[in-house]
Amino acid sequence: MTIPKKQLEQDWTNLETVAGNGLLHRRAFLRGGAALAGAVTGYTLVPSAAAQQLTDDPWSLGPGATVPDYGTRSRFEKDVVRTLSNPKAEPRTQHARTPHHLLNGTFTPNGLHFVISHAGDPDIDPEKHRLVIHGLVKQPLAFTLAALARYPMVSCMTFLECGGNSAPLFSKEPIQASVQALHGLVSCAEWTGVRLSTLLEETGIDPKAKWLIAEGADAPHLSRSVPVTKAFDDAIIALYQNGERLMPGNGYPMRLLLPGWEGNMNIKWLRRIQLTEVPAMTFYEARTYAPILPGGKAYQFYFIQEVKSFITHPSPGLAMKGPGFYEISGVAYSGNGRITKVMVSADTGKTWAQAALQEPVQSKAFTRFRVPWRWDGGPAVLQSRAWDEAGYAQPTRAELVAVRGETTRTPPVTGFPSQHYNAITSWSVERSGEVKHVYA
Amino acid sequence: MTIPKKQLEQDWTNLETVAGNGLLHRRAFLRGGAALAGAVTGYTLVPSAAAQQLTDDPWSLGPGATVPDYGTRSRFEKDVVRTLSNPKAEPRTQHARTPHHLLNGTFTPNGLHFVISHAGDPDIDPEKHRLVIHGLVKQPLAFTLAALARYPMVSCMTFLECGGNSAPLFSKEPIQASVQALHGLVSCAEWTGVRLSTLLEETGIDPKAKWLIAEGADAPHLSRSVPVTKAFDDAIIALYQNGERLMPGNGYPMRLLLPGWEGNMNIKWLRRIQLTEVPAMTFYEARTYAPILPGGKAYQFYFIQEVKSFITHPSPGLAMKGPGFYEISGVAYSGNGRITKVMVSADTGKTWAQAALQEPVQSKAFTRFRVPWRWDGGPAVLQSRAWDEAGYAQPTRAELVAVRGETTRTPPVTGFPSQHYNAITSWSVERSGEVKHVYA
Repeated sequence: MTIPKKQLEQDWTNLETVAGNGLLHRRAFLRGGAALAGAVTGYTLVPSAAAQQLTDDPWSLGPGATVPDYGTRSRFEKDVVRTLSNPKAEPRTQHARTPHHLLNGTFTPNGLHFVISHAGDPDIDPEKHRLVIHGLVKQPLAFTLAALARYPMVSCMTFLECGGNSAPLFSKEPIQASVQALHGLVSCAEWTGVRLSTLLEETGIDPKAKWLIAEGADAPHLSRSVPVTKAFDDAIIALYQNGERLMPGNGYPMRLLLPGWEGNMNIKWLRRIQLTEVPAMTFYEARTYAPILPGGKAYQFYFIQEVKSFITHPSPGLAMKGPGFYEISGVAYSGNGRITKVMVSADTGKTWAQAALQEPVQSKAFTRFRVPWRWDGGPAVLQSRAWDEAGYAQPTRAELVAVRGETTRTPPVTGFPSQHYNAITSWSVERSGEVKHVYA
Repeated sequence: MTIPKKQLEQDWTNLETVAGNGLLHRRAFLRGGAALAGAVTGYTLVPSAAAQQLTDDPWSLGPGATVPDYGTRSRFEKDVVRTLSNPKAEPRTQHARTPHHLLNGTFTPNGLHFVISHAGDPDIDPEKHRLVIHGLVKQPLAFTLAALARYPMVSCMTFLECGGNSAPLFSKEPIQASVQALHGLVSCAEWTGVRLSTLLEETGIDPKAKWLIAEGADAPHLSRSVPVTKAFDDAIIALYQNGERLMPGNGYPMRLLLPGWEGNMNIKWLRRIQLTEVPAMTFYEARTYAPILPGGKAYQFYFIQEVKSFITHPSPGLAMKGPGFYEISGVAYSGNGRITKVMVSADTGKTWAQAALQEPVQSKAFTRFRVPWRWDGGPAVLQSRAWDEAGYAQPTRAELVAVRGETTRTPPVTGFPSQHYNAITSWSVERSGEVKHVYA
């Protein structure tokens, strides 16, 4: 039985909008603000007698499955997966992208954390793996996992983002794809491990050491140069991801964690840190991660993933089901610290409503934002824009591409702008309920 | 090569202790406090030439495994599992306990969250499942999962603990078992969903409604009575657990979440909420979860899981490997709000050192505490004691059993004290490095 609309139109339709095209105050529904009666599809009135005597579904009629020693997801969730760029593991990079539109909350479960792997995930025996710190140190040392377990540990919730995340938005024309395809190379987890500075106390360092070269135990021995100052700021040798040991694709049994800095520098399967006077000018820092500017020059050592946000609900692939109430929700983050504000627009940026931020807002971590919306069924363009505590605001796409350029290559390829896209993303809501990616 | 002890004894052995038997200041090692040289086993000096030319382990010699669409753990982690009380699913309750000694950080990954299931995990089709709210309401309503997805959501990190967690500590003699066996029926996750108060705005409620009876879709239709005031405080209909949909053992596709209240009330596989004037006096509230006191009377409706802590590192099964530096670490939590302080003793409670609390400290969530320790190789008894923002302190075991009684039944069984044990746990460190459970 559908609820008669008249009967239920109590007060939500009278709520004042705080920005154009139906955006409501972020606190409108906290603790009894208003009933949404009639504004949501999918609920039904139930006669009292039927409610009193609920019939049993098949799964209520007998014992369920045996509780396993390591829990796995319901079979009904089998489509909630990362998308793979190279599922047959041909001899090139593999990307696995996080399905942000199918998740909620502030971080990413381990099975769905994004992965980029240049030669698959090495099968490392943690008993045999060593981390060697050498170069401009007083005494070169090799650490076993058991040795690292003896040191003081810290935990921090932090996002990791590939420098090339969101690269499709450098395309001159908006690419029609899901938020997973466009922004799936960023995730957030709680990492626990030993501060790198603690280990450098052990080796001692030569005052001439200005850089460290971190190297992985994967076949390409991926390596990056890191200013030694980051080691004494917040760098960690991470041993645990969301409470358990790292996932194989995220660096098992240990990785370098440089909160807020581009993903590729957070060397996975970490086997060596060499202290040096100068950077190594490795393949990845000299080429892939040196974004080329329109004039032909390039940014080099562009470490910080700057302030960014995108809307996950609604987003392409999550069709709207008729006019009424919706919550607009997404994630915001900044490599410069805490998110201070997220503004949301439903009218192509003409007017903006302040979103609620899920507490606690943590530095360099996903912050979930939410704002209530009364969709009248007409066209709308949804955008989010974030600010961080360092004072930076997320740029518009026009501002960003004016400086960084665009590309006609689809998808963007190396040599064309492909790095550090952090501008505003726009979703167009059609009358049909379909959600599309647009430039606006 | 082992490090010559003399060469490396720089300054850590001179650090001042802040409590007896080697407890050091909680900030001693933050940002360059002292080298631990010689105090940790498992690292080795490496000749510079060898460090420069690291040999490749087998996993570095060729491509690794294909990145999967849903990540799974390394095969070397296969023993990090929940222990099962009833692995063959005989017709009685199944318990799956969290291995706290093998985890680190502030919460529990979904595969390792504790589960108690009275008839296995039902295989619920989320498209067909309904949540019905009826009884003393203005209009009884049935909600689909799609309908719930339309409502405003919130996230909260909260622990869940079985009222019977730690029951073995009511035994007159200390039971020799791991922290997993003793305290494994508590876990912590980020839950995301719709406030119950939002749904009660939709149904409307009769002012006579003082209780709600929540019922699961499992075969026993487990049900509990909850004061309606909790619905308007912080109760949630949880749809996501650590970012993804709930695990089957934790209530897929939806559960009631009552932050800080005993686990059993957080009805899993939630199918019905009935508003009533009086509690239902269901099986679980009238019997199992009504702790009997020494005089024969019983606590009824003892909802809150009170302030508690236990040390996870070291703990039984994690043997100490020789004298030197160790970090003492564990979790603290309170159903009354935030943890304000954790004190740790290494001398059977004679003196205490304040532990560092991992920020941010969240209400009704795990708080990881840590304190550095110089173990001289002699006998020690380790204890932790927590305080919460409501002003409660974790009791000693003697204080608790004086009020609640003890049992000679091993393990404790229903009818004997078995509920809401929150007193101090003591680990004895033997000269051999073995860690034992003791009463002290």
